[in-house]
Amino acid sequence: MSSILLNCMGAVTDHSEYSEPEVLFKNPQIHVKNPQLDTMEEDILYHFNLGTKTHNLPEMFGDIKPGMGVPSISIMLHKLIKLLHHARCIDFALFRIGTSGGVGLDPGTVVVTDKAVDCFFRAQFEQVVLGKVITRSTELDVGVSKELLQCSSELDDVPTVIGNTMCTSDFYEGQDRLDGALCSFSTEDKLEYLRKAYNTGVRNIEMESTVFRAMCHVCAIKINQSPMSLTFFDRENSVIKF
Amino acid sequence: MSSILLNCMGAVTDHSEYSEPEVLFKNPQIHVKNPQLDTMEEDILYHFNLGTKTHNLPEMFGDIKPGMGVPSISIMLHKLIKLLHHARCIDFALFRIGTSGGVGLDPGTVVVTDKAVDCFFRAQFEQVVLGKVITRSTELDVGVSKELLQCSSELDDVPTVIGNTMCTSDFYEGQDRLDGALCSFSTEDKLEYLRKAYNTGVRNIEMESTVFRAMCHVCAIKINQSPMSLTFFDRENSVIKF
Repeated sequence: MSSILLNCMGAVTDHSEYSEPEVLFKNPQIHVKNPQLDTMEEDILYHFNLGTKTHNLPEMFGDIKPGMGVPSISIMLHKLIKLLHHARCIDFALFRIGTSGGVGLDPGTVVVTDKAVDCFFRAQFEQVVLGKVITRSTELDVGVSKELLQCSSELDDVPTVIGNTMCTSDFYEGQDRLDGALCSFSTEDKLEYLRKAYNTGVRNIEMESTVFRAMCHVCAIKINQSPMSLTFFDRENSVIKF
Repeated sequence: MSSILLNCMGAVTDHSEYSEPEVLFKNPQIHVKNPQLDTMEEDILYHFNLGTKTHNLPEMFGDIKPGMGVPSISIMLHKLIKLLHHARCIDFALFRIGTSGGVGLDPGTVVVTDKAVDCFFRAQFEQVVLGKVITRSTELDVGVSKELLQCSSELDDVPTVIGNTMCTSDFYEGQDRLDGALCSFSTEDKLEYLRKAYNTGVRNIEMESTVFRAMCHVCAIKINQSPMSLTFFDRENSVIKF
């Protein structure tokens, strides 16, 4: 069985070398699959207003995060699922790994997602289709989470827990941050909400998990056989400790 | 007055003076709505890798274009509004221009947004804050739209209309596309929904307008004096004709 790794924003890694991991170590730089690029005098990334001649890209970008949230990942998922279908892929698993804000955890703790829940702590995702709200389950086989947790026990210095992952549609107000352009609540309000979340089993917060789970659930992508949980790394500066 | 152009994913202007337009002239700098900012030693716009102590924001600010959908643009809007605030920008306007799917229009028609509406054709945006739904208006001064339409009349070969822009959270099912990985409706269902949308005044569909309007509305960025409408170009392959 092969695995497909989806990074933070749902960017798909280069799959072609997954089954040959040794190649990664020989040449770890990303390989784009477009020979035309080599013939261009300059490559202009026009949606970013950047160019290879006008900007020092290696210096400027150690960290890029294009596309965030349910709409972005759902666009990618529609295409990815269709791609897997057209390519007649069989016997594969999807993993999604990304950063998240931890709730009541030490920074650096890995959270293997049990349930993906919405802002009301419900394991569901609401999709509006033709003006009607359709509610989809985000439940997956709990055995998969336990299997992933078991794997982590074989690693040193990687604290790992199973917990619920809360998915929000907003990074600031939706994740009770105090440093947005809009903030109508106090630190106490924030902590009260996070305590509620913690008490329902939430251990981290991010912005894509429910639609990822829901779409996989609807498409029945080997839910019983294949791990399809999310694994998140806590973001140090947003970890909430009680 | 200077203008700030937000491409595709949208950008923002100063909203804070909506109910007191005369204040704009007395103190035209953008007012963010978060008293917490004043207590911070430094404000780090970490998705932009910028900080108020490490960067000269008034000197640096230009034009940023990340992501797709409400979550992505809202992240950018929070940062942009704060950036405009920190940069002490005055007397400016925000325009957002991007592609969209037209409804009942010829391909290439420019739509100047009158109302930004949700999938239920309501001129509002729902934001969940600490587990509670907050409903924000997306209404703006209609005079601005008419002014933009008037400008367009001076251009040859640019068919332009004023209409409502519908904002969805999904590109496929949410915009009644038949070519997603999931599709539970027929062509007839799709056309029926689009006819309903058209009859309520919708002329195009995209994924960011409501939160853009709502955040601008809350921050009251020169709504009476400055144009802040969205202008969209119809995407040829998604135009629905009746």
